Parts: sequence; C-alpha cells; structure tokens
Amino acid sequence: MAEEMRAVVAYGPKDYRLTAKPVPKPGGGELLLKVKACGICGSDLHAYRGAPYYWGDGKKPGWMRAPVTPGHEFSGVVAEIDGEASRKWGVKKGDPIVVEQLLPCWECEYCKEGDYHLCAVHTMYGFQKGVTEGAWAEYCLINPGSLVHRIPDGLDVAEAATVEPLACAVNAFQTGSVRLGDVVVVAGMGTIGGFIVQLARLANPKLLVVVDIMENRLDLAGKFGADVVVNAAREDAVKKVLDLTGGYGCNVYYEVTGHPNGVIQGLEMIRKKGRFVEFSVFGAPTTTDWSVIGDKKAISILGAHISPHTYPIALNLLRSGKVKTEGLITGKFPLADFDKALEKAADTATSIKVLLMP
Amino acid sequence: MAEEMRAVVAYGPKDYRLTAKPVPKPGGGELLLKVKACGICGSDLHAYRGAPYYWGDGKKPGWMRAPVTPGHEFSGVVAEIDGEASRKWGVKKGDPIVVEQLLPCWECEYCKEGDYHLCAVHTMYGFQKGVTEGAWAEYCLINPGSLVHRIPDGLDVAEAATVEPLACAVNAFQTGSVRLGDVVVVAGMGTIGGFIVQLARLANPKLLVVVDIMENRLDLAGKFGADVVVNAAREDAVKKVLDLTGGYGCNVYYEVTGHPNGVIQGLEMIRKKGRFVEFSVFGAPTTTDWSVIGDKKAISILGAHISPHTYPIALNLLRSGKVKTEGLITGKFPLADFDKALEKAADTATSIKVLLMP
Amino acid sequence: MAEEMRAVVAYGPKDYRLTAKPVPKPGGGELLLKVKACGICGSDLHAYRGAPYYWGDGKKPGWMRAPVTPGHEFSGVVAEIDGEASRKWGVKKGDPIVVEQLLPCWECEYCKEGDYHLCAVHTMYGFQKGVTEGAWAEYCLINPGSLVHRIPDGLDVAEAATVEPLACAVNAFQTGSVRLGDVVVVAGMGTIGGFIVQLARLANPKLLVVVDIMENRLDLAGKFGADVVVNAAREDAVKKVLDLTGGYGCNVYYEVTGHPNGVIQGLEMIRKKGRFVEFSVFGAPTTTDWSVIGDKKAISILGAHISPHTYPIALNLLRSGKVKTEGLITGKFPLADFDKALEKAADTATSIKVLLMP
Amino acid sequence: MAEEMRAVVAYGPKDYRLTAKPVPKPGGGELLLKVKACGICGSDLHAYRGAPYYWGDGKKPGWMRAPVTPGHEFSGVVAEIDGEASRKWGVKKGDPIVVEQLLPCWECEYCKEGDYHLCAVHTMYGFQKGVTEGAWAEYCLINPGSLVHRIPDGLDVAEAATVEPLACAVNAFQTGSVRLGDVVVVAGMGTIGGFIVQLARLANPKLLVVVDIMENRLDLAGKFGADVVVNAAREDAVKKVLDLTGGYGCNVYYEVTGHPNGVIQGLEMIRKKGRFVEFSVFGAPTTTDWSVIGDKKAISILGAHISPHTYPIALNLLRSGKVKTEGLITGKFPLADFDKALEKAADTATSIKVLLMP
Repeated sequence: MAEEMRAVVAYGPKDYRLTAKPVPKPGGGELLLKVKACGICGSDLHAYRGAPYYWGDGKKPGWMRAPVTPGHEFSGVVAEIDGEASRKWGVKKGDPIVVEQLLPCWECEYCKEGDYHLCAVHTMYGFQKGVTEGAWAEYCLINPGSLVHRIPDGLDVAEAATVEPLACAVNAFQTGSVRLGDVVVVAGMGTIGGFIVQLARLANPKLLVVVDIMENRLDLAGKFGADVVVNAAREDAVKKVLDLTGGYGCNVYYEVTGHPNGVIQGLEMIRKKGRFVEFSVFGAPTTTDWSVIGDKKAISILGAHISPHTYPIALNLLRSGKVKTEGLITGKFPLADFDKALEKAADTATSIKVLLMP
Repeated sequence: MAEEMRAVVAYGPKDYRLTAKPVPKPGGGELLLKVKACGICGSDLHAYRGAPYYWGDGKKPGWMRAPVTPGHEFSGVVAEIDGEASRKWGVKKGDPIVVEQLLPCWECEYCKEGDYHLCAVHTMYGFQKGVTEGAWAEYCLINPGSLVHRIPDGLDVAEAATVEPLACAVNAFQTGSVRLGDVVVVAGMGTIGGFIVQLARLANPKLLVVVDIMENRLDLAGKFGADVVVNAAREDAVKKVLDLTGGYGCNVYYEVTGHPNGVIQGLEMIRKKGRFVEFSVFGAPTTTDWSVIGDKKAISILGAHISPHTYPIALNLLRSGKVKTEGLITGKFPLADFDKALEKAADTATSIKVLLMP
Repeated sequence: MAEEMRAVVAYGPKDYRLTAKPVPKPGGGELLLKVKACGICGSDLHAYRGAPYYWGDGKKPGWMRAPVTPGHEFSGVVAEIDGEASRKWGVKKGDPIVVEQLLPCWECEYCKEGDYHLCAVHTMYGFQKGVTEGAWAEYCLINPGSLVHRIPDGLDVAEAATVEPLACAVNAFQTGSVRLGDVVVVAGMGTIGGFIVQLARLANPKLLVVVDIMENRLDLAGKFGADVVVNAAREDAVKKVLDLTGGYGCNVYYEVTGHPNGVIQGLEMIRKKGRFVEFSVFGAPTTTDWSVIGDKKAISILGAHISPHTYPIALNLLRSGKVKTEGLITGKFPLADFDKALEKAADTATSIKVLLMP
Repeated sequence: MAEEMRAVVAYGPKDYRLTAKPVPKPGGGELLLKVKACGICGSDLHAYRGAPYYWGDGKKPGWMRAPVTPGHEFSGVVAEIDGEASRKWGVKKGDPIVVEQLLPCWECEYCKEGDYHLCAVHTMYGFQKGVTEGAWAEYCLINPGSLVHRIPDGLDVAEAATVEPLACAVNAFQTGSVRLGDVVVVAGMGTIGGFIVQLARLANPKLLVVVDIMENRLDLAGKFGADVVVNAAREDAVKKVLDLTGGYGCNVYYEVTGHPNGVIQGLEMIRKKGRFVEFSVFGAPTTTDWSVIGDKKAISILGAHISPHTYPIALNLLRSGKVKTEGLITGKFPLADFDKALEKAADTATSIKVLLMP
C-alpha cells in the first residue's frame, strides 16, 4: 500500500486543487476503498460555484466543512478490511462495492424509525472534512456506520458509480405509485430524470411523456422509450399534455428540473387528485398560487429525498440491463483533469453525467 | 305557497340587492326547500369584493354566472317534493335537510370514479344563475342531481347550516391521518380551522398546537381543547413549535390561513416526512424555496377540496355534541340586513361565522 | 328487427335449454345490444352444476333468480338506442360496446361512496330474471343504470368479450401494488391468473413466478413472460420460492386458484409484511392457522372483487396489444352448441376461456 | 452488588423452578437491570403448558431454548452501566427504564429495512438461554443491541411493566386506521383488547362495540368507554352488530380473541371493504370460507406483530393518564409465588394481567 495518494480538495468556492494526501489507515470496523469511479453531481457543481447552502451566508454556517475531498457517487474495490467489518458488510478484500452516499448517525429519531436517509445529522461523503472525505481521490475511508453493498458479478465496477443517482431515481419513481392506467410526465431529462424515464417505461403506464428544453436530452428520452417528448422551449407543454388527456391532465408528474418553471408547468398540467413528485434542489424560489394544491385540484405533492433502501434495487436493475447508462454517461476524466470534468459537467447542452476515474 | 319571495341577488362586485323573485316551481325529481339558515363563506366575501376568479379578468370568464342568488351553506325544511325525489333521497315534505354545496354532473371522469367533489363542470349552489341559485332567499330549488341529507332529530335546523364547513373540515382533517403519537399544528382559527381543532382534539394526538394572529380566535381554540396556542403576531411560532418538539417539528400541519405566511411558516416548522394539509383559497401567490418539499424534508403536501362523502359524518358529530358551533357562530341576521351581515362577516377581529336567517 | 331470438335459458341445475324468446324492446334510457360474443365464467359452471350459492340451500334462497338467460362477459353492437341513452353513454346505433357485468343500484351506501362494485343489491347480468337477463342470446337489453363502454377502433369485437375478466384481473393486480424490487407469485393460471401474469410482466418486478398443477397452463405462463414456472403437483412450490428468495419468501402472492391449497401454500411462501391478494371463489372451506397472518408474519391479505373503474384500463391494454388473449381463448362455439361449450369450459386440462358466439 | 440472585428457570413444560443464579456481569455496551415488575403473557402460559411451538414437536425444534429464565414484559432501574451504553441509550445508573421485548439482529433484511420487529432471527427476552435471559429474576442483563427507553417522571415504575402489551396494542390499533365515521368492534377483552378499547375510545369513532364471553371483562370494557358491549355467549353478536349498522356491518374489526370463533364472527359482521386487524396467537386452526375475503366482501385482513416504534407512544399515553391499567392489572405476586401467579394468570374469569414483583 502506498503512503500517499492524489486527491482533489475543495478549499473554497472555485478553489479546488489536486493535492497529495496520506492514504487513510482504516481503524476497527472500517474499510479502505480503492476508488474506481466517482460521478459529479449537480450539488457538486452548486458547491463549486459557491452556493451559500454549502459555504454559509454569514448568518448560517454552510453544510459543507472544508477543506474536504468531494465525491459521493462512487464505486471501487475493497483494499483493506478487518474481520469485524467483513462480517458486518459481507464483503472481503478485493470485492467490488458501492457505498451509500449518506452516513447515518443511527441515533436520531429518524434513524431509529428506519428513515436513515432523513438523518438529522446528515453527514454525507464528500462534504464533511475528516468525517466523510469523498471519492475524488485514489482511496476513500469508509466509516463503520456506512451502508455498503457488493456489486454483483456482471456489472462493470465503474458503471456502478451511477448506482447512487439510480437509487435516488428509484426512490423518486416509487413515490409516484405509477399504475397501468396513468398518464405520466417526467419533467427534466438530467441524470435523475433519465433514470426515472427508464423506470416509468418499465412500469408500462398508459402514456409516458417527457418534457425538457434541450433536443439532445429529448432524443435520449425517445431512445429510453418515452411515448411523447415535448420541448417546452418550442411548444406549449401544458397545452400539449391537456390535449393528450382530453383536458384532464396527467395523473403523475415528476418534477426533476430544479427550476421554478418545472413547478409552475406541473401544477397546470396535472389532473385533479394527481400525484406531483418533487425531488429537485432549486436555485431560486418559486412563486405560485397555492390555491391550486387544495381548493382547485386536491393534488398531493410528494417530496422525496435521496435513496432509502433502494441501492439493492438499483444494483439489480443495472446488472440485469433493464436500466441502462448509455447516453447518460457523457464523459470520463482522469483525476488530474478534474477541472475539465467540472467544465464538461456544467455544459448541459452536451453533457449529462460525468465520471472521474481515479 | 306564496308566489313571490325575497332573495338577495348579486349583480356585480359590491352590487348585491334584496329583491322579490318568483318562488321556484319544482319539476320532476326536484324539491323545493324552505330555507332556515345560510352561512356567509369566505368565498362569498371574495366574490362580493370582486375577485377576478368569480367575475372574470377580461381574458378568462369568471366562474360565477350573475345575476344569481348567493348562498351554498344552508339548511331548511322540505316545502314541496314529488314521489320520485322522495324515494331517491329518503325524505318527505316537512323534513329538515341539508344539501351538499356542489351539484355534480355525474358524467365526467371524476364523477364516474366516485370523486364527485372534483367534478369537472363544478356547478355550486349560489354561483350559477338559473342552474344552482343559492339560499340567500326564502326558498331554494334543489336539482335532481344534488346530494340531500336529512337532519337527524335533536340537531337544530339553523345550526345545521354549519354542516357544510364542518364537512369540509372533516375532509381536511382526515387527509392528515392524525395518529396518537403526532404533534399537530392547526394554522388559522377561522370556521374551518375551528372545526379542525375540535376534530383534532377528538383524535387525541400527543400535542395539539393552534397558531393564529388574533387573540379572540386563540381564546376560542383554547376552549376547544388546544394544548398550546401561539399568537404568531407576537411570538416566533416556528421557534415555539421546534422548541416543543426537541427541534424536530410537527408531524402534521393544517394550513387553513389562506395567507402565504401560513405556508412559509408551515414549511419551516414541519418535521421531515411530515404531512402538510393544504385546504386554503389564497388571495396572493406564495414565494418559497421548493427544495424544502423534497430534498430538505421529504414531506407530503396533501391538498383537500370541499367535502366528499363527509356530510353524514358531520351531521353525526354535530348531533352528538362532539363538535360544537358555540363561539364559531358570531352573528345571525335577517335577510333584509344582508349588508350588515356581510360587514360583520368581514370583521375578523370580532367575527368568525355569520348566518343569514331567511 | 326480428321479433324472436334464440337464447339459452337456465331452468335449474343442469337444466339449461336453447329456446326462442321475444327480442326485448328497449324502454326510455335503455339500449338493445346485438350480442357478438359471451364468455363462460367459472361461476357459470358452478351454477350449471347446482352450487347452493346460486340455487339456494333450503334455508337461504339462491342469489340467481331462474329461469334466466346466463352470460355476463359480453361484447356486441348497439342495435337500438334512444337519444337519452345515447347522450348518457356517448354511444350510438352501430357502435361496438362492452357493458359492465354488475348493474349497480346507485342508492346503497357502497354505490354512494363510489364503490359501485360492492353494491349491496348486487344485480348482475345473467343472474336475475327479468332484470338482468344475460348474453347467451342473440340480443341483450341494457338497463339505464348500467356502465357502458365503447370498444375502441382496432380491437376485435368478439375478443372484447374478455374485457370482463381482464378488468377483474386489473383490479386484482393493482390491489397488490407491485414494485420494482418485488418477488411476485401468481398461483392459478386460469383466465384471471393468465391476465394477472401478463399484467405483472408489464410491471417488471424483480422476479415473476407462476404456480399451477397443469403443464399446458404453465407453458402458457412461460409464453406470457414468467421468469419461473412451478408445477406444484410435481415439486415443492413453497421450498422453491423460499430457495429463490434466500429463505425470505415472496413480497406479493396472488391467490387465484380457488382451492384451499392455494391459500395454505401462499401463507407458507410469503415474506413477512407481504401482500397476499385474494380474488378467488372457493368450493370448499380452508383450514389453517391464523397466527401466521398477524403474529408470525404481519402480512396483509387484500381481498378484491370484480372490476371497479377498470374497464377503460382493460380496453386500452387489449387494444394496444400489451395484453393478449392468444392461448387464453381456447374455444368458440355457436349458441346451438352451448352444451359442448360448457363441456369444453369444464375440461381444465385443455381449456381456459370458452366463448359463445351468438 | 450481590453475587447471587433469585430467578425462575424454565426447564421443561410445567417444570419451572425458583433457583439461585449468579447476578450477570455486564460487558461493554451492556447494562444490568434491577427488575421492578414483569408481566405474565399469554405466550408464557402457552410455554408453561408445553405448546410445541416453544418446545418443539420432534420434527421441528422449539423456538424457546431452555433452561432459561422467562419474562419479556418488564420494567426496572439501571443498576450498572458503562459510558458507551449510557451515551447510546441516554440513561444512567438509577434511571427507571423499560426494554423492548425483542432483541433485533440488525443484520437481516427486515432489520435493515426498519422493520426490526420482524427480525428473521427473532431473539426475545425470556426465551433464549444465555442470550436473552428474561426478567422473572431480580436482575436482567440487557444486550447492546436492545432498545431501551427511559420511563418518564410521574409514571410508576412497576406499572410501566405494562408498556409492552400497551405498545403492542398501539401497533394493532394503528393498523386499523380508525376514522371518525367508523363503527369499530374489538373482539376479545384481555390485556391487549383492554388497551385497544381505550385507544379506540381516544379516537372517538362513530360507535365502539366490544365483544367477549365473560361478564367481568365486558364490565371493564364499559368502564373504558365502550358504547355497546356484547356477550357472545348469551346473544348473537353478528346480528347485534348488523342491527346497529343498518345491515352493513362494522368498518373495523379487531380480532384479539385468539379463538377461531373470533375470526368467523368477524368475517360475518364486517362491512364490505372493511379492515379486519389480526393480532392473535391461536391455539387451534380456523376453518372458514375464504371467498368472503375477496369475492364476497373485498375486505383487508391486516396482520400486526408486537410493537414497532410504539414504546415511546405507549409510555406517553400511560404517563399522561390517557390510558389506564386499573382493572387490567388483576394481581401482583412476589417471585417466590410465581406458581400462584401462573395459576391466577390462567384463571380468565377473575384475571387479566398478573405481574411478578421481583
């Protein structure tokens, strides 16, 4: 085992540097991961650009504690592990694994009630220095409280880095309880949206509509089996969905745009008593008439957060080939080119998911 | 039977007049109601003041079709009825009844699926001239498609005019699925809120908190059994609820303020995975960060509209005395004083529910 | 229009005769159907053989009121209709239609609550003489209270006679709320089971297992996309499912065998907290330890009855070709050969669904 | 700390002896409990009498591993605890506590999914020698994997031994999702039934009916607020409930009799689409027509097992006085009289819950 490794370290907004760090030494019950691949998430871009949620705003401290190595969507191979950890997680040295992005505290009320993904402490790989250093590095230390899953045979280890967003998409998708007779709209064809489209295709609803504003993404939605794709930059998406449904609107609306327009359009095109699934992180507040929610339509807006209990489902879907990453993974970069990778990830016209390959 | 009756007629915003109209003649399957009492709803005040939703805004026609007699919260006695109507509704001449506010079309998809309260046509007593003339009048004609309920013995007929808002409150309350261990917040102590507080009291949650900005209403909430009342004009309601719950927040939040602040405060004081019930009609749009719904808290916002299948429950609750109107009914006026009644209804510092007594 | 038509009439157990009857004359709001095809249901066979439920047992009168023409799974073409009926149902003379099997009373509490399929009166085509005469006849009179659906273009009218069992299967299937990670077992590959297998295939669960005791049916299940088929007459089905699931058992079990063994086996192979959907009519009581339901496994046994609100979904699935009848329809007979049709329907080794073609 | 303690030890069916055992020495993360009170459960009586489930039947080994000290419904005071355990559970030496009856493995799929009460290993205090020795003893050793709850000030420590059955009752009760308009039947007025009656009273349904066959228990049900009590040994309980509901039947039926008659009667008196909650352990199989579940009534039979996440709710209910044990606790015995205690517990005509007071 080498003593030193290369790792990206976030020092401040737009101040991310490739550095040399000591390879972590796993303690009792921990494991050391040799990182194979790690995705760049939308939240990583927000943090890079200096969003106050991550770095604080003078009044409230940021959620991120820097300097820290980013990266929470990762896969790799067990490099070091002791007997306690091996028994607990059912994996041994050399096994390919993914690790859930959130490190639950296991002591708050949420954790005790089985909702570990809502953990009140909310420590996540790639965000808290010294506790959950992330995987934009050659090695990553895994905490005894983490949730570890073996990657099944037949699934490429690097591709498995996308299990994180897929597990999120499974949670979001299931929150909508899609049924055979439903008209389903997915708004936002990013990584999460692209996975939700595929999951919705697997559920065979009456009609599957995808709305976005970029042609490259809508083309991909078509390849993933959308019945109808709508470019909201060019046509009236609300009118289109109402026309397709005899004026009633869609039964289920997946809001994964992260943009206020995605909310407003959804509230207009959803059927009374419809289910509106909200998964996005927004960059701006949304101004809208809340009378629509109760008085006008009696809809349910169902919020979903990350991926409770869905990693095993996501691993199974990827391995079986029922869900694909082709077209979603738009770039792979060595660690040394992390700045180019960030640039590519930010270019939504040509890119969806970018992986770093340490 | 007299040939003429007195009735209020809405001609336009702030142009409501007491007039003489012919007493309607019931056709086959219809019934004629001698009105005993009829409430003034918040929506009646909105319409009186000229809100565009009712009168149109130049682009979109209004929902109200005037000139029409208002009034959809009413009770009375059967004055005329034929055999067909008598058999269908199980009531006869002289019986005290209430009639549901909405006249379903029974032919749209919502009506066919059992969700008659979401009827796509949405005809409501007091809003569509010639079809559903309302009960600010001595007599009111009941359409064969209406839902009629006999008022049980032991319940005052005039008091039964409040069955409409109580039935709405039952629907809103049940949407929250309150359980024994829940901390419940009711925000907004108007008529609906006052009933929801009583219903929540009946359910015996862990803690029942009521938030409003007027002392008279909070006093009444205390009489209805609230464990804690909070005047949001004087203290930090969010902090109070977080303090009461170890920082976690409330499990269920009933938003019946109709004010954007009621939404914003609710999103701040609700626990992760909480249920936020939305029943209000808003006078202004709400600007807020939708990241809270999914990413930050994974809550459910559950919209509710009027009173599907809840009139029988409301009648039973009023009759048994489990729910009371004392304190909520703040004034009774003869038809001739309808303008004073409107004035009183608008004075939220001293009034909650005002009844017209034709 | 002819004055007379041929019709089968049930006079008593095993006393069914082909007779000549007057063609019914539709009254106001009714329609006359020219029958194209009508299925023979398991319940028709039970009735033919004299089951007490249909004919009474000396103490309790039977549900069937004879002499009556059987047949409740039917399709055909509108032969006569007046304006009122045409407007109500949105169909005109010459249109191909299906009619729901149950004629709701629209006045009992179930009908009022939107659960018309649970109607307390429970009048069904083919069972009550003079009220709901069935479709083993050239013509069938449709009551104004019935639910009528136009058969969409592109769907064969005779094939649409199977919409009734498919609509039942849709209801049963949806009762199980199948999700992506579920292991699903369908026990009983008759008509309903064959449709449920196809619906489960459309939902893409983790694993789809079909259990029956006849090879011809299991072969068909394989064609419909079952991942695993188990012949319970030859191998230990419980052990098989436990082996396939690491000893945990299946998440969802569809009991459509109608045999006590189907229940017992299901309770043994289901996972704790599993969903056990019960749709069958049983010929014999089931003896089993009910401790399994709560104390041992905390499962939910979810009963389903016929087809509430599911005809439109079934019509759409058949028309789109997502669900197929090939292999399930095992015989078509002219009305004159109804006795041969009954014989064929009873021969489960070679037959699944038999249609009469009046 | 003494070296020896008195404890009951179960050697075999009807071979239970008061013995002297060494006081356990807590290891890292464990705690030693000074037992204050421990209830005798129905399962303890079954085990004492030699039921094969506990002792094996020659083919299958029993769930109980003897010799072992029984007792899983207990309360007491922390006698010894280290820093790790103190931090984990938030309790210190001298604190009054209850401990959940089940010791989850935290590694099976159920535990990982938040359903620790369904743990596949299912180790319970009082049943597995050396692992979970029970509390019919002066001291009891608490495993680091256990769930420990501090008894709030104002709640008697001995009375808190009934938190175990109350937490079970809370789970069973909540499984029925009682609403304001429901007619609720509780069948079986033992300890669990007596608590469910009180919880149902707190929920204020339309009507609360209790069915049992013993007058003393029905008297107590009346004191707990049942609207109607029915002695099924003297009158036709099914007819009574149908008469009370216009022939429709009850919305929710709690089966806590443990007797096949409790099931059969429930299936007859439940309304279509009703919720039948099954919590019992049965001494004999139940023979009944399963057609009722789906085809005849489309009901849901909802199984519940012990007490997931409900101890905090139960502690709060007892402390607040909303739920009472008066009338349910029918005897308290010193450890030396455990045989008399067992005798009393078995005498259902005079006894409900008996406590041992070590």
